[in-house]
Amino acid sequence: MPSYTAPIRDMQFLLHEVLNVTAQDVPGYGGLEPDFTGAVLEEAGKIAAEVLAPLNPVGDTEGCHFDNGAVRTPTGFKAAFDQVRGGGWTALDLPEEYGGQDMPYILGTAVGEMFSSANQAFTMYQGLTHGAASAILAHGTEAQKATYLPKMATCDWTGTMNLTEPHCGTDLGLMRTRAEPQGDGSYKVTGQKIFISAGEHDMAENIIHLVLAKIPGGPEGIKGVSLFIVPKFLVNADGSPGARNAVSCGKIERKMGIHGNATCVMNYDGATGWLLGEEHKGMRAMFTMMNEARIGVGMQGLAQAEIGYQNARTYARERLQGRDVTGPKNPDGPADPLIVHPDIRRTLMDQKSFIEGARAFMLWGAELIDRSHRGGDQAAEGLISLLTPVIKGFLTDEGYDMTVRAQQVYGGHGYIEEWGMSQFTRDARIAMIYEGANGVQALDLVGRKLAADGGRHVMAFFEMVKTFLKENEGDEALKADFLDPLKAASKDLQAAGMFFMAEGMKNPHAALAGSYDFMHLFGHVCLGLMWARMAKSAHAALAAGTTEEEFYKAKLATGRFYMARRLPATALHLARIRSGGAPVMALDAEAF
Amino acid sequence: MPSYTAPIRDMQFLLHEVLNVTAQDVPGYGGLEPDFTGAVLEEAGKIAAEVLAPLNPVGDTEGCHFDNGAVRTPTGFKAAFDQVRGGGWTALDLPEEYGGQDMPYILGTAVGEMFSSANQAFTMYQGLTHGAASAILAHGTEAQKATYLPKMATCDWTGTMNLTEPHCGTDLGLMRTRAEPQGDGSYKVTGQKIFISAGEHDMAENIIHLVLAKIPGGPEGIKGVSLFIVPKFLVNADGSPGARNAVSCGKIERKMGIHGNATCVMNYDGATGWLLGEEHKGMRAMFTMMNEARIGVGMQGLAQAEIGYQNARTYARERLQGRDVTGPKNPDGPADPLIVHPDIRRTLMDQKSFIEGARAFMLWGAELIDRSHRGGDQAAEGLISLLTPVIKGFLTDEGYDMTVRAQQVYGGHGYIEEWGMSQFTRDARIAMIYEGANGVQALDLVGRKLAADGGRHVMAFFEMVKTFLKENEGDEALKADFLDPLKAASKDLQAAGMFFMAEGMKNPHAALAGSYDFMHLFGHVCLGLMWARMAKSAHAALAAGTTEEEFYKAKLATGRFYMARRLPATALHLARIRSGGAPVMALDAEAF
Repeated sequence: MPSYTAPIRDMQFLLHEVLNVTAQDVPGYGGLEPDFTGAVLEEAGKIAAEVLAPLNPVGDTEGCHFDNGAVRTPTGFKAAFDQVRGGGWTALDLPEEYGGQDMPYILGTAVGEMFSSANQAFTMYQGLTHGAASAILAHGTEAQKATYLPKMATCDWTGTMNLTEPHCGTDLGLMRTRAEPQGDGSYKVTGQKIFISAGEHDMAENIIHLVLAKIPGGPEGIKGVSLFIVPKFLVNADGSPGARNAVSCGKIERKMGIHGNATCVMNYDGATGWLLGEEHKGMRAMFTMMNEARIGVGMQGLAQAEIGYQNARTYARERLQGRDVTGPKNPDGPADPLIVHPDIRRTLMDQKSFIEGARAFMLWGAELIDRSHRGGDQAAEGLISLLTPVIKGFLTDEGYDMTVRAQQVYGGHGYIEEWGMSQFTRDARIAMIYEGANGVQALDLVGRKLAADGGRHVMAFFEMVKTFLKENEGDEALKADFLDPLKAASKDLQAAGMFFMAEGMKNPHAALAGSYDFMHLFGHVCLGLMWARMAKSAHAALAAGTTEEEFYKAKLATGRFYMARRLPATALHLARIRSGGAPVMALDAEAF
Repeated sequence: MPSYTAPIRDMQFLLHEVLNVTAQDVPGYGGLEPDFTGAVLEEAGKIAAEVLAPLNPVGDTEGCHFDNGAVRTPTGFKAAFDQVRGGGWTALDLPEEYGGQDMPYILGTAVGEMFSSANQAFTMYQGLTHGAASAILAHGTEAQKATYLPKMATCDWTGTMNLTEPHCGTDLGLMRTRAEPQGDGSYKVTGQKIFISAGEHDMAENIIHLVLAKIPGGPEGIKGVSLFIVPKFLVNADGSPGARNAVSCGKIERKMGIHGNATCVMNYDGATGWLLGEEHKGMRAMFTMMNEARIGVGMQGLAQAEIGYQNARTYARERLQGRDVTGPKNPDGPADPLIVHPDIRRTLMDQKSFIEGARAFMLWGAELIDRSHRGGDQAAEGLISLLTPVIKGFLTDEGYDMTVRAQQVYGGHGYIEEWGMSQFTRDARIAMIYEGANGVQALDLVGRKLAADGGRHVMAFFEMVKTFLKENEGDEALKADFLDPLKAASKDLQAAGMFFMAEGMKNPHAALAGSYDFMHLFGHVCLGLMWARMAKSAHAALAAGTTEEEFYKAKLATGRFYMARRLPATALHLARIRSGGAPVMALDAEAF
């Protein structure tokens, strides 16, 4: 069975030596002393390793069971959820007045990675609740916040988001679910929603559905969509769950992975709901949830890559097969461990260099969110809005590929379910699809975010890279291995941006044909920047005389690998972008 | 449920307009007139579409069942196998004297692609039998051939290959299974083999296991391995199956995919076997099977990509979602079909351009095999030996990625098993692993094949590309879109070869660190060459005034896409190869 060890040292390195959180002017960051974050991460790591990880194969093998509208979660899930609740892990970053611990989002992100590595399907119950709570926090009335948030903070009540219908996923303007006003402030919601994660289950005393629907007579299409709170049990005046609402689960789906999470068809048959936020502004409210969810999904890519890598590394050290081509490394054994073989190292380094770069990217992204939410920093908000599709699309594509690599290290055993590596691949696959398929992320990035606010945010990104390069230009230790490759990659990104600007107005197809490559190009530059920053911190620690020389040297070697072997992908992405729309659009639809 | 249509027009184009089979000096090719191959492909396509494809989800959902040593295949498999046998599809290219139809391998390859697209798990029963029969044909005594081949030609008896043991997969020198000579020409075989596809099932009256084992007292390691024929039922003097042999299936594995094929643990408890080929030369005999199997596995990559693509294309044409950014294409409908969106086209073109290039590569490879086996052409044998790891490794990696892309087109529905796209991904995944994991293919290519016979075969490959470029250098229609990119890609491949020659002797790790990239670089150049050849044929047909203008124009557009968007990957692979061994090998094993 696979095992999991929380990467605490690496997280502490990022928080305190790269991002220097306590030195940042972000409200709440002053309290993030190394001892404190260390203690939190240590405890979270224990829960992840000892409670959640052992349940991961159980969830995969048993799956959820549907019986006459009720959903039974896999053996052990409920007890584990109680333990997670009991430890206060479900609302680290929610406000204290609603039962949260008011910690910065950055710390919740680190903990979230651990939980998600250990058991993605399980962690989704909690993650979706957090997203729904965030939407209520941002858009709810005081009464709504008081009614729902304390229960959702503890996950005594869990949350869902209901967007998709059978005939519409991305294109929500086609939505048919309707909400009829009842004159008393409530609405009757009627329609069918599909792919509702955690839509029904047996681990909470109530489920709070956030449902997109159209109020009759409103504007056509996406502009006529509103968001509603539809609880499974209507809430009594004393706050306790009361009568059953007219919402029910019609079936659960048989899926490629995340078997421990119930993916539900939800039927709303005149269910009572209340408007969340303004009429016809449902998409705005939903995007509070969606943006958070997209970043959380990006993290799932990283998280599955991490647990895959941890196990592949162990297997590569232990499995004896073949000899080092330069001579035996384990002469007394029947063969050398797999890890002596260059191609096994190549694939492990692909994984390791992605994971550590992606973790830095995630935590830096979380810092931007804290700056924006806690500090009201508009520039940070603009930047994270630009980077959200990159985090979601790039980290889930790459994260998935890394789970495939990890599985491959096991050879035939990687394909046998008993060994557990297949689950990481199957679970990671969904992250490329849900919360907006990655092609939609690329469209969002190139079609919307790049030019938002006059292109100010992408300019700020380039400026930041330039400033970093300038500040460190005299640093010979960084130059050839880190600064030069980062500069080249950043130039490729700028050139791609220029191409879109020049072509995009004349021929939008030409820009959009390159959107997916641009998303990956951008992701690589972000990871290149992260590696350059990490290398700088590692050099500083070594220069200062550390007792952990091996840690910092490994960091530098891993970073050099990324810059030498992974970052040059930017040139290929640029070449594809520059080939324009013609090769992509040449065929008639009938000629496919 | 997914559907399948055999790509007959495309296969005929390759056979008759690109490879010009009837004009080739290969024994048996004279009979491959278009009407004949068309009739065979038509019939095979019907079996694939009407018999095998509908059983594919059945096999996936039901799987195989193990009960006390017996294996029950999924509902309908046995009847379908009888139908395939009855149609004479199991021995197209085996000699007539053993019940085959003596057709060239190239035709069997085209048929094999169809069957494998339609139902990979099912087709493996037949494919493994073919491999085992080939080994007996090449290395068996006349008596062995007479005893086994006629039954195996009809798949009344199926075959297996037994290599892997729990502690050794790639490194067969560690093998523990032993074969004790009994003095009567027979051996007692004892040991455990794992991952034996079709090791036990209910669709044949006998199963002929080819088993690698060590004869006590023989050389150490891989040089002491011999190959044995171990039938499930001993064969009576009259050729009928007799007493049960001491071989049994201990369990079947729960796997990520190919659920319809039983992956068995096989226990040999003093089972009676007979040497196939010479003592201690078992690997040579096994490689007859392995090489064939590796090419067959490469074809599985193509085949799963094909069925994934066919269904993704249909979904993209039918699913209405969003509007073309340049204006509605389906103004009377609620939305435009997915296929109007540039990123959907990008991914469909990735798939289409890979598939058509890969099919050309497969059929050209099959021609080389026919040249070698039927014509005794040493140069062809050397070339296909060089290309075998490229076909296996590149086509299965890319084929898998294409199934992931096809699944992605379906959005959330791609993750739901009911829609069938997940199965293509899960089934395709094994092809990267079995018959030598792709890292082992890369090692074989760079560590063995490249320098084999003084590097003569890779030189011949370069010479062939050069000759093609030279012969067509005046062709302006081909130059910019096809010849120039092929030339650049071929230069990258040569530069990588030079790097290995210069570095490989000094530092084998440096060469092997780039082996995986080299395998992909080589694969892209092969597909580039195939596309240049196809483009030449398409131009010729258009110039000659065809009634199928759309077909040839689509061929050119698809080729241009490959050359512009996919082939430039060669530069990235070269850059990675040139970064050498240091970034890959820098970390101590403990630092991972």
